Amino acid sequence: MSIAKRPSFGSDYLEGAHPAILQRLVETNLEQSAGYGTDTYSESARNKIRSACRAPEAAVFFLVGGTQANATVIDAILYSYQGVLAAETGHISIHEAGAIEASGHKVLPLPQTNGKLSAKDICHYLDRYWKDETHEHMVMPGMVYLSQPTEYGTLYSLSELKEISEICHRNQIALYVDGARLAYALACPENDVTLPDLAALCDAFYIGGTKCGALFGEAVVVPRHNFIPHFFTIIKQHGALLAKGRIAGIQFETLFTDNLYEKIGQTAIEAAGRIRNALYDKGYKLAIPSPTNQIFIELDKAQLAALSDKVELGFWENLDENRIIMRIATSWATRKEDVDQLIASL
Amino acid sequence: MSIAKRPSFGSDYLEGAHPAILQRLVETNLEQSAGYGTDTYSESARNKIRSACRAPEAAVFFLVGGTQANATVIDAILYSYQGVLAAETGHISIHEAGAIEASGHKVLPLPQTNGKLSAKDICHYLDRYWKDETHEHMVMPGMVYLSQPTEYGTLYSLSELKEISEICHRNQIALYVDGARLAYALACPENDVTLPDLAALCDAFYIGGTKCGALFGEAVVVPRHNFIPHFFTIIKQHGALLAKGRIAGIQFETLFTDNLYEKIGQTAIEAAGRIRNALYDKGYKLAIPSPTNQIFIELDKAQLAALSDKVELGFWENLDENRIIMRIATSWATRKEDVDQLIASL
Amino acid sequence: MSIAKRPSFGSDYLEGAHPAILQRLVETNLEQSAGYGTDTYSESARNKIRSACRAPEAAVFFLVGGTQANATVIDAILYSYQGVLAAETGHISIHEAGAIEASGHKVLPLPQTNGKLSAKDICHYLDRYWKDETHEHMVMPGMVYLSQPTEYGTLYSLSELKEISEICHRNQIALYVDGARLAYALACPENDVTLPDLAALCDAFYIGGTKCGALFGEAVVVPRHNFIPHFFTIIKQHGALLAKGRIAGIQFETLFTDNLYEKIGQTAIEAAGRIRNALYDKGYKLAIPSPTNQIFIELDKAQLAALSDKVELGFWENLDENRIIMRIATSWATRKEDVDQLIASL
Amino acid sequence: MSIAKRPSFGSDYLEGAHPAILQRLVETNLEQSAGYGTDTYSESARNKIRSACRAPEAAVFFLVGGTQANATVIDAILYSYQGVLAAETGHISIHEAGAIEASGHKVLPLPQTNGKLSAKDICHYLDRYWKDETHEHMVMPGMVYLSQPTEYGTLYSLSELKEISEICHRNQIALYVDGARLAYALACPENDVTLPDLAALCDAFYIGGTKCGALFGEAVVVPRHNFIPHFFTIIKQHGALLAKGRIAGIQFETLFTDNLYEKIGQTAIEAAGRIRNALYDKGYKLAIPSPTNQIFIELDKAQLAALSDKVELGFWENLDENRIIMRIATSWATRKEDVDQLIASL
Repeated sequence: MSIAKRPSFGSDYLEGAHPAILQRLVETNLEQSAGYGTDTYSESARNKIRSACRAPEAAVFFLVGGTQANATVIDAILYSYQGVLAAETGHISIHEAGAIEASGHKVLPLPQTNGKLSAKDICHYLDRYWKDETHEHMVMPGMVYLSQPTEYGTLYSLSELKEISEICHRNQIALYVDGARLAYALACPENDVTLPDLAALCDAFYIGGTKCGALFGEAVVVPRHNFIPHFFTIIKQHGALLAKGRIAGIQFETLFTDNLYEKIGQTAIEAAGRIRNALYDKGYKLAIPSPTNQIFIELDKAQLAALSDKVELGFWENLDENRIIMRIATSWATRKEDVDQLIASL
Repeated sequence: MSIAKRPSFGSDYLEGAHPAILQRLVETNLEQSAGYGTDTYSESARNKIRSACRAPEAAVFFLVGGTQANATVIDAILYSYQGVLAAETGHISIHEAGAIEASGHKVLPLPQTNGKLSAKDICHYLDRYWKDETHEHMVMPGMVYLSQPTEYGTLYSLSELKEISEICHRNQIALYVDGARLAYALACPENDVTLPDLAALCDAFYIGGTKCGALFGEAVVVPRHNFIPHFFTIIKQHGALLAKGRIAGIQFETLFTDNLYEKIGQTAIEAAGRIRNALYDKGYKLAIPSPTNQIFIELDKAQLAALSDKVELGFWENLDENRIIMRIATSWATRKEDVDQLIASL
Repeated sequence: MSIAKRPSFGSDYLEGAHPAILQRLVETNLEQSAGYGTDTYSESARNKIRSACRAPEAAVFFLVGGTQANATVIDAILYSYQGVLAAETGHISIHEAGAIEASGHKVLPLPQTNGKLSAKDICHYLDRYWKDETHEHMVMPGMVYLSQPTEYGTLYSLSELKEISEICHRNQIALYVDGARLAYALACPENDVTLPDLAALCDAFYIGGTKCGALFGEAVVVPRHNFIPHFFTIIKQHGALLAKGRIAGIQFETLFTDNLYEKIGQTAIEAAGRIRNALYDKGYKLAIPSPTNQIFIELDKAQLAALSDKVELGFWENLDENRIIMRIATSWATRKEDVDQLIASL
Repeated sequence: MSIAKRPSFGSDYLEGAHPAILQRLVETNLEQSAGYGTDTYSESARNKIRSACRAPEAAVFFLVGGTQANATVIDAILYSYQGVLAAETGHISIHEAGAIEASGHKVLPLPQTNGKLSAKDICHYLDRYWKDETHEHMVMPGMVYLSQPTEYGTLYSLSELKEISEICHRNQIALYVDGARLAYALACPENDVTLPDLAALCDAFYIGGTKCGALFGEAVVVPRHNFIPHFFTIIKQHGALLAKGRIAGIQFETLFTDNLYEKIGQTAIEAAGRIRNALYDKGYKLAIPSPTNQIFIELDKAQLAALSDKVELGFWENLDENRIIMRIATSWATRKEDVDQLIASL
């Protein structure tokens, strides 16, 4: 084991893949299939995703990782003179090493609350842009980027998403949702945004695999027919085309068979729920009101040291000399006994 | 099976992974490990590769695919005003959808023979460039890109590689080798270029996994210490950083344990040898004198139709109305009985 | 004088501007006007150009130089996954330091004859591309780039241009003409392509100012309404927007008043005609059959040394140890007495 | 006249060029000179600038405009994985249409006060970046961009500039100063930063011409020898190389002869001083304490309407329904009688 024997809650991508996925990779391993996503497993996976999204016209593409998916989709949709509006805490704003700018597009940062953009701030930005006499000298906003759940584990409600979608389409800009942890939103009792809602309201979104039970892989869904012409070539140009496309296809086919994607989410959400209840009971302070699989707690150094003997948490942020925000992430792979151990250590 | 029951020789990435790789993924699946290549499997894989290359200072990075590796390495090494010399048939020249140009660098095409550049042509280009009074208005050559074996299955000899390396370093430009099918060069009796040779002569090269037994993955080797500062961030910026880095690490650790990478090459080369002998015996015309796992044969339409009932070949090029070049590719996964069937069908 | 007292025929941008242009700059100097091309001089210049092109719907933009105009227009028209077909001797292929690639687009080189592309080669490339089974892995051709006159001083005839335009539009790709030296084509007796022809056949072209009598400046003409949306912002993004747009506007207004642009061409063409006749008479060998303001002659070293005492020519290319191609360029500023001196020196 | 007969204080680039510049262009017009800045005027201008900066080793390049200079210099200095720190109100942050991002670099916005960055905020950002455990996933700060004077007409003091320079060099990042309006800083009594100070403290800066008396042109100064290798080719690649380089060279030679650049600044600063005194006397509220040639005043709509009958001001920003910030800009071309008229109208 590459980390000490303590169970880790450091992130939601600590293990390999859900065993059902590995099993399918083993079963199909010696079959021969065509490359680049033209195989029957990928086709089947695409159909299952279209069906789950009630989007029969949707184009579905399997990319390897989140930064890659974001950079490729955003570059594919924007014109060269356009930028993308995102929360200043959004993954593309901070943690993608400038991948969006590397393809020539500015990330236009907006203020956020608990990782979320407000319809009002988006509206205000667009209004100011178009009214500014010098707007032709500025980067034209061409897209809104959201993450569901956000980097802080929070959720957009259906009514919030509808309002933002309406603003985007009234302003003729695209709405794109980063669903790196989408399984953990879909399984969350507080959530009222379904896959068909995303397909109805977004111009593109991706269903996260890497953090939701796959070895790797993100399924980009483009609901409207031919909304991104020649996306295959764009993916290739971004170095994002898998030769053995079936490896992603088999994974997503498995995730969308027998509700596995839902179950993966539920396992994580139930574990997070137990932990959250224990934290409330014991009087810990939660830094962010996140209902999904990420929990952010404030600890002082002594508390952290004590906890760290028993379980590994994820460092998030120093608040001051003595207080720290730590992240507890659960996943499809979180074991009941490890949650017990964490709770016992609190 | 996603292709008809005929065995296919259409490419060398038709199957999943070598069973030993899948087995290791299954064995390690529920272990928890740190992300982004900082896990112990990746570290072990890096050490084994350093050892195989006799390059103890080498930096080793695991990327997902060939186009991605090429685009990332080339962009990392070149200055913004530099381009890369490559055979006009090179993978980066034609089949990467402009990935090199997408990061701002021109591919400077050179003439080739059976996919190979000559030292003389490289030298001539560099001399002409530097003597041209207007060279400051031109793209400065900053790198030579070779593939070993080439896209046509041919090989650079050690003396050829040494000569090209010497030219590059005399001209203070980098030498980079694309080893997408490197296992099939290393196992080839005609080959005299070893991994330590590549490490000694190149500024960077990659050891191909996708076409040599892995689910995916290419190991980029940068022999000299700190030759590419901040390459981690550059990889991230190119959308090429795997969150679950261990999935690549475990694969390469397995490939470099018990000589698996060599054996994979040998299986393919032996199969190709048998097929090649049968083709000679039966008087087929080989379009290119390739000693590795790719065989290019000229067929007329009747021959092709007859063969295609029994085995699947890969389309390469139309020669004229009636004659076609087809590719036969073997791999680690090529089965003796399928080779028998192919030979019987000739 | 910054070059020795010998008259120079080294290029067509050795002097400042046509005196009529300087005079207008002086006359209008202290007027106050709005920036970025919104002034009345620029508007008047645009109207005169629309009128000369018989293209009342045309958008006209004034950029500073040729490389800048090419890079900006090509980037504005192409999608991110598209490249531009150009003669392997085209300015964008060689002498723009990779400006096209710097904005992410591959220049797809085609063979040429005396600097010209043939309709047949363009057709052949497009056919092969679309028939290639792997074309989705390749850069999609999105534009044909021509120069009129070419870098070798040669001309496309109207029938050639019509044929290429027809091929482009049948294949739904753009046709763009670089007119850096357009005045010298328009004034050439051999030429049958007018400004209205260019406006009718091209998707964009530019009317060269820098080499045709202006201090600097190129007028980009986009004949069809709104063919390049938001081109103003694209120009700004390329660093190609003049704050004092009127400086370009006044120059082009002057060039398109009282047929000055024609006269500028005629002066150069007449001088070139006299020189060409003298060269024929004296048995010099012309390297390229160019009818415009550039003459390419083969000289041996002794001839060159003798000539260079009297006049300055432009170096073009070494043919072998002893023979050299030199360029003689005339312009709007070429003086009769300098031509006399050149002819006397032959 | 392209704007109504009212004198305009709308910007500092309303007129052509200082008459001394036009006169030199006329005098030298028919001389023949080599291109691309290799002429003797450009060489003389470079020497005069080196001398004014007491930077005998400095490389000096003449570019056309400010956005172009910024995009070219920043791209030349940064590595592909680096971004540039700038005030969120900086020209590159807002008004360059994403030119910095178009060459792949993120502008990292910092808070500002009256357009100025503080050493403390820069320091804080750098410290946080390097201490962040995930900083390798982020854009690495590689440069600080300042403008002197700022977009709000304010000035960095010598001690402030020294402190920022010290921070940059301790952190091994570059310091770059945008001097679009540098003449108006240099002539300002409040200013204590000289050209030699800029050369001593910055890695690159530009001396603005467009807004300081030239038709166009910015002189980029790189004080340390070979700090930007192959900058000529980088300029060409950015479409920023003037064919007739002498047109810029003659302008800057004139600006740096007989202290013309200083005088240009003084004219503007004296005019601004008179206006500012009148505004104080009459109780107008200045929105920003700017000592240079830009004055920002708060007006209500009635005041604005009354003033606009007599003089033209520049719109800056709406404060609320009734109150507006307007900009008054003076320049080398501001006439005493126009200032009188403005003051009389207050």
